[in-house]
Amino acid sequence: MTQVPVTYELIKEEKHTGARLGILHTPHGSFPTPMYMPVGTLATVKSLSPEELKEMGAGVILSNTYHLWLRPGEDIVQDAGGLHKFMNWDQGILTDSGGFQVFSLSDNRKLTEEGVHFRSHLDGSKLFLSPEKAIQIQTALGSDIMMSLDECPPFYESYDYVKNSINRTTRWAERGLKAQENTKDQVIFGIMQGAGYKDLRIQHAKDMAALDFPGYSVGGLSVGESKEEMNEVLDYLTPYMPANKPRYLMGVGSPDALIDGAIRGIDMFDCVLATRIARNGSCMTSHGRLVVKNAKYARDYTPIDDHCDCYTCRNYSRAYVRHLFHANESFGLRLASIHNTHFLLNLMKQVRQAIMDDNLLDFRQDFFERYGYNKPNARAF
Amino acid sequence: MTQVPVTYELIKEEKHTGARLGILHTPHGSFPTPMYMPVGTLATVKSLSPEELKEMGAGVILSNTYHLWLRPGEDIVQDAGGLHKFMNWDQGILTDSGGFQVFSLSDNRKLTEEGVHFRSHLDGSKLFLSPEKAIQIQTALGSDIMMSLDECPPFYESYDYVKNSINRTTRWAERGLKAQENTKDQVIFGIMQGAGYKDLRIQHAKDMAALDFPGYSVGGLSVGESKEEMNEVLDYLTPYMPANKPRYLMGVGSPDALIDGAIRGIDMFDCVLATRIARNGSCMTSHGRLVVKNAKYARDYTPIDDHCDCYTCRNYSRAYVRHLFHANESFGLRLASIHNTHFLLNLMKQVRQAIMDDNLLDFRQDFFERYGYNKPNARAF
Repeated sequence: MTQVPVTYELIKEEKHTGARLGILHTPHGSFPTPMYMPVGTLATVKSLSPEELKEMGAGVILSNTYHLWLRPGEDIVQDAGGLHKFMNWDQGILTDSGGFQVFSLSDNRKLTEEGVHFRSHLDGSKLFLSPEKAIQIQTALGSDIMMSLDECPPFYESYDYVKNSINRTTRWAERGLKAQENTKDQVIFGIMQGAGYKDLRIQHAKDMAALDFPGYSVGGLSVGESKEEMNEVLDYLTPYMPANKPRYLMGVGSPDALIDGAIRGIDMFDCVLATRIARNGSCMTSHGRLVVKNAKYARDYTPIDDHCDCYTCRNYSRAYVRHLFHANESFGLRLASIHNTHFLLNLMKQVRQAIMDDNLLDFRQDFFERYGYNKPNARAF
Repeated sequence: MTQVPVTYELIKEEKHTGARLGILHTPHGSFPTPMYMPVGTLATVKSLSPEELKEMGAGVILSNTYHLWLRPGEDIVQDAGGLHKFMNWDQGILTDSGGFQVFSLSDNRKLTEEGVHFRSHLDGSKLFLSPEKAIQIQTALGSDIMMSLDECPPFYESYDYVKNSINRTTRWAERGLKAQENTKDQVIFGIMQGAGYKDLRIQHAKDMAALDFPGYSVGGLSVGESKEEMNEVLDYLTPYMPANKPRYLMGVGSPDALIDGAIRGIDMFDCVLATRIARNGSCMTSHGRLVVKNAKYARDYTPIDDHCDCYTCRNYSRAYVRHLFHANESFGLRLASIHNTHFLLNLMKQVRQAIMDDNLLDFRQDFFERYGYNKPNARAF
């Protein structure tokens, strides 16, 4: 049997929840889980340098297959020596399959058993993504973890549609596995779908588990359903996800969802939220959301979060960051992005400590209270 | 006699030119001259962190009084503990007088003996800048070196206008000196004007020298005249600038002008060129200008400049930086800004070494040849 280059090592299970502390081993380092993966859509985590990401404790980052396929093209990345070398990132990289972007960004989609025909959102050119093509692009990119092509139907899609869809996603997963050329350095994770239907979710989890991927993700969540619905799916789904393999909840990265996902046994998360809201001057703090652009911070010389030890909070005031946003200075974007990304990475560090201490539920309650999740009408994220 | 907080120490004069190696002592450190000062218009050197600037050897930086007066307001900077603390820069800061921006950016200007009435370029509000106000704002900002308010007439302005203008600038300089509240930590430099008229330039240099400022700048150059005209002015002017005080050529920062200015005994330079052209993907290299956005670099995996040891060139390829520019990723801007700023700082390091070795003219010839300044129709800057 070939040695699998990406493996999960269980360290400890929390006493009162499904949470687990573990290590994800990759060819580019071993990183503690549960982990938050910053998103580097176009081979850069927006406004941040690799050194800044490492300083704040980032392990694996995510990059987007669809976007890199279109720009600069996976062949250019491959000729550069792969994505790690191209973007100067020597730790783990996970690439998605491209499917989610094809279904959310592209025009004139046509879904067939073979794959998806669509037009580029950039120049309207005709493109075709198949399970084989998704693996081929990701092989060229050279990520540590590739994702199998799936269809991500809306959470409230009809039962019959979702039933057909998960079966096709399973067939696509088998085709992706067959298309894999290189098992030395890269692995494929499978994606479990099923929208909001418990029996379909469980059915698909079993079907995918049978294919023996070295890791699995939960797809089709954080696409419009409520937090309660998301947690309900995780409650009944994660017991069917292989316990000896990493479990990855795709596209989820709000503080509450990270904690609630970890409680249900999720090991990996990714989300653009941290850097996306930073671009609007929105900051996550230990006391909830803070929009640093607001007028009331013009003369506020305290850090964005007085409980934070990120580069931004150690060196700059709310007044300064607000000034940079008002003057359209890109350094403001960077300072807010550093802060938010650090916030989520640090949150996961605290979650891991809580798992170690068997007090994750207490941690959750404290955090939710401080963050304002329990307030009626709170504008939390 | 009060101890002057900013002084110039002469180390060595070049054998064959007017160039000199020295040290500028400030309350925030001592830095070798000739020096290039990166420009942090709005309390940030566009896209760069203080740590990045220090890593590439920046000493003193320049910030703009006019811009900070309008945004965020000098009172906010003062309440923050001054500009150094506000922007997290613990080395030297020079602020200009605001005059140049008033004359180049604002609307509805009206120049009187008292000062300049004008409208803000941001919101059209009525403002008034006087010699006293310029010093008052800069005192609040807390820069190490403040500049005296001057009028900067166009290079080809009429003789009579310029004659009146320099006399008013002298009177303004005297008023600025009288307005200075705090001599403990801040100094004022005087500005010598006179457009392209030799007798007026020399007259103004003598008048200003008589006021015994601790440093002097040459104003009114790099405003449309040719490089030959600029050098001619410096040739006859610098002998009249006090040799025991720093000489600062304002707003000049193209590689050729830095070298030619140093040859004529200039110690300090500032210019937005490095970061401004970086925003268009234009890079200064040891072989001349390189527009990294160009299609021909799409698969070029070499660094922007193979003779450069900046962070960008050590870690990233032309193909990667080009990709970032094409994808509108701000990290590209930062990488190009790091490269260009490092290029000029490193150029001055080489100039200082050449002064030490008494071979500045040879260095000039080599550099100009490599950079392409001697080619007919070369698009150099």
